[in-house]
Amino acid sequence: MPYFDMASSAPLHPVARQALLAALDEGWADPARLYREGRRARLLLDAAREAAAEAVGCRPDELVFTPSGTRAVYDGIAGALAARRRAGRRLVVSAVEHSSVLHTAAAHEADGGTVTEVPVDRTGRVTPGAYAAALREAPDGVALACLQSANHEVGTRQPVAEAAEECAAAGVPLLVDAAQSLGWGPTEGNWSLLTASAHKWGGPAGVGLLAVRKGVRFRTVPPTDERESGRSPGFENLPAVVAAAASLRAVRAEAAAEAERLRGLVDRIRARVPELVPDVEVVGDPERRLPHLVTFSCLYVDGEALLHELDRAEFSVSSGSSCTSSTLTPSHVLRAMGVLSEGNVRVSLPRGTAEAEVDRFLEALPGVVARVREGLGAPTPAGAAVTPDPEPEREPGPEPEVELVVDSLGKRCPIPVIELAKVIGEVPVGGVVVVLSDDEAARLDIPAWCEMRGQTYEGERTADRGMAYRIRRRA
Amino acid sequence: MPYFDMASSAPLHPVARQALLAALDEGWADPARLYREGRRARLLLDAAREAAAEAVGCRPDELVFTPSGTRAVYDGIAGALAARRRAGRRLVVSAVEHSSVLHTAAAHEADGGTVTEVPVDRTGRVTPGAYAAALREAPDGVALACLQSANHEVGTRQPVAEAAEECAAAGVPLLVDAAQSLGWGPTEGNWSLLTASAHKWGGPAGVGLLAVRKGVRFRTVPPTDERESGRSPGFENLPAVVAAAASLRAVRAEAAAEAERLRGLVDRIRARVPELVPDVEVVGDPERRLPHLVTFSCLYVDGEALLHELDRAEFSVSSGSSCTSSTLTPSHVLRAMGVLSEGNVRVSLPRGTAEAEVDRFLEALPGVVARVREGLGAPTPAGAAVTPDPEPEREPGPEPEVELVVDSLGKRCPIPVIELAKVIGEVPVGGVVVVLSDDEAARLDIPAWCEMRGQTYEGERTADRGMAYRIRRRA
Repeated sequence: MPYFDMASSAPLHPVARQALLAALDEGWADPARLYREGRRARLLLDAAREAAAEAVGCRPDELVFTPSGTRAVYDGIAGALAARRRAGRRLVVSAVEHSSVLHTAAAHEADGGTVTEVPVDRTGRVTPGAYAAALREAPDGVALACLQSANHEVGTRQPVAEAAEECAAAGVPLLVDAAQSLGWGPTEGNWSLLTASAHKWGGPAGVGLLAVRKGVRFRTVPPTDERESGRSPGFENLPAVVAAAASLRAVRAEAAAEAERLRGLVDRIRARVPELVPDVEVVGDPERRLPHLVTFSCLYVDGEALLHELDRAEFSVSSGSSCTSSTLTPSHVLRAMGVLSEGNVRVSLPRGTAEAEVDRFLEALPGVVARVREGLGAPTPAGAAVTPDPEPEREPGPEPEVELVVDSLGKRCPIPVIELAKVIGEVPVGGVVVVLSDDEAARLDIPAWCEMRGQTYEGERTADRGMAYRIRRRA
Repeated sequence: MPYFDMASSAPLHPVARQALLAALDEGWADPARLYREGRRARLLLDAAREAAAEAVGCRPDELVFTPSGTRAVYDGIAGALAARRRAGRRLVVSAVEHSSVLHTAAAHEADGGTVTEVPVDRTGRVTPGAYAAALREAPDGVALACLQSANHEVGTRQPVAEAAEECAAAGVPLLVDAAQSLGWGPTEGNWSLLTASAHKWGGPAGVGLLAVRKGVRFRTVPPTDERESGRSPGFENLPAVVAAAASLRAVRAEAAAEAERLRGLVDRIRARVPELVPDVEVVGDPERRLPHLVTFSCLYVDGEALLHELDRAEFSVSSGSSCTSSTLTPSHVLRAMGVLSEGNVRVSLPRGTAEAEVDRFLEALPGVVARVREGLGAPTPAGAAVTPDPEPEREPGPEPEVELVVDSLGKRCPIPVIELAKVIGEVPVGGVVVVLSDDEAARLDIPAWCEMRGQTYEGERTADRGMAYRIRRRA
């Protein structure tokens, strides 16, 4: 039963399991105690720190273990902001950071700080120079900048080394969230702080990493205690820490070969899905990306129904579609990229994924998408676009514009786009369809549909209820 | 090799180990996901929550899992304070709470809040009515009160039910830190919030509990995410949570019988230690106490040396003496109780401790203490008190007071007390010894020594360096 959601959580690596078992027996005592059980626990903790620091590329005394990657991000950002409060209260982040970074940014704003969001291009990548520009244009002092090493939803690698140089030139520390990439290799560039999460590389849950380079100003926000150099309070989760460090070393040993293998499988998905399934957009940078992750979106498809059908076919994937989110909003990453969010599927292959599993997925996918589309009464493949109405003859001079209004109020993604696709043929070329929708996803998906289908998106305006989206038929 | 420091951390219970192993295979996926691995994880999480809630005595939807007991305390207090900010900014705590509570109180004070510390008696227990008095006398609005169920250093149970009634009468929520007692039974009384830590009852590290009763106002301090009802951010540490819940149920099933058995062993230590070792004070309430924990202090003994000797004799215990603390201050609990802190030993017996192990400890202890005392050149047992100098004949009317000054500046516990004991016989009965000391522990231990040895403690005053302690010879 293929599990293709490595980016959410990886199954426990066998080395992690083995290390965890050993450390349960040897490492349950308090490493701060002086008796033999405590000393034994301390030795294990020190060894785990050394191994993890080597993989991160920092000194052991620069690294602490936290209870999760989320907590590493919260406390890393808070500690850096607190220490640089005199320099300023502005936090610079990319628009596609993990929610833990964006939640911390929102809390910082609610607390009176300011936040700059650096935009990304259509591949999800911040442009080189973007951090420099954000730092230059900040009207107030910038305390900290954050950039992920690679995006968790579309796999695009970020220009971390360039951003670190730009930050260094401006005298601003850079925090890199390396959660998605640390298992594949160390983080390039001269970062100041780094965070990661063990269960993303096959380590156990309950372990995050926070590295703070010597010389980087840092002040843990109280309350805290004497654990982990005063930077991560609470009794050390030692067996899990030991398992995390051991598995990081193990996955790194296999990383180069496995990355090449999975990259081949992902290339196959990237190439085959648009051939096998009509009206699909594969998103993310095709080259500068994580080896194991690929994301695509299917027009006229309900993401939740798609996930459900794939689950019935025994494929576990995730989605950034609004219908799969508790807030009914599409993924902020897809939104920042300006790409289609409906029928979104993220495939992230765990280490050891067999070629045959990927082939089975490619076999199953077309039927699954077709069934979901059929259930929604979606237009037949490329229907609206391939059979345009005959071009109307145009009189010279102004004439009343043909305009059709589609009321999709109260309907959720992908229905507004399906209704648009069904009626676009009813207006003459040059005519306009206005879609009324109060679904958050429409804002992203109607422009994306226009881009994919060669129609002209003319913009949105606030209507009595929801928004009115204006589309001009081009073909 | 007897491990007698259960109050720091308990070895993993076999049921916890078994549950952890099973959950590593079944519960590594994200319980928020809709595919089968996620649904399976969700089922495990729900079952663990139900089991833990039953043991706590609350509804499952009132309970969240946190990464540690410390984090449960931090976030529980912060959330209750934030929600009641309009009611006031005063926090009431007992003087003998766990450091996690006191650290949170200190952070609250640094943030502009106010804190009342409720004192304890010589047994370490807050007196009934003390919370009512603290709430009544608070000049400003009280947002929250905290009281541990039982003390972690001396085992004394607190009058939680009475405090809860006093708080309810004042309309103030009560947070109970049940870290030390939850494995032994549910917490009495109508508490509002409760915290605990799994590794204290034989569960794994990495799991705390935070219960917030329905109707109690609570607002998680941002940043947070959608995990654990928005009350505990970060990916759920599911295998550990499952193991925590299973082991809590298991230790509860054995609790009544095992408590009775360990109570007998502790009674033996309480009775025998003062018979076997001269100049010892057993501290804590002899009746209203945790079944497995006993603490005593030995005059003229260096706590660190004592721990080291006991470790060599293969007994693992802990100590609240200043020399065993990184800050070189004696335990705040012993200080609040006003009892001797030098040569302090806490014995906390894990479940299953054999009678023979306790007997071996009682056999070893006298020799260990004697060796440490010998190494320090301590007075022979009860020497100073049993051989008083002959009473000096007193002329009627005022006469110049005999006063001897002992300069113990720069010397650490227990040296100032040893030097005092050595010279007290050199002044006549009615005469005065002044000890100069800059050791924080002297402040606690010199009055405690006077109490134990029947001498009169006349107070302290600031000297050129350190403090001057004044002792009048009575016998």
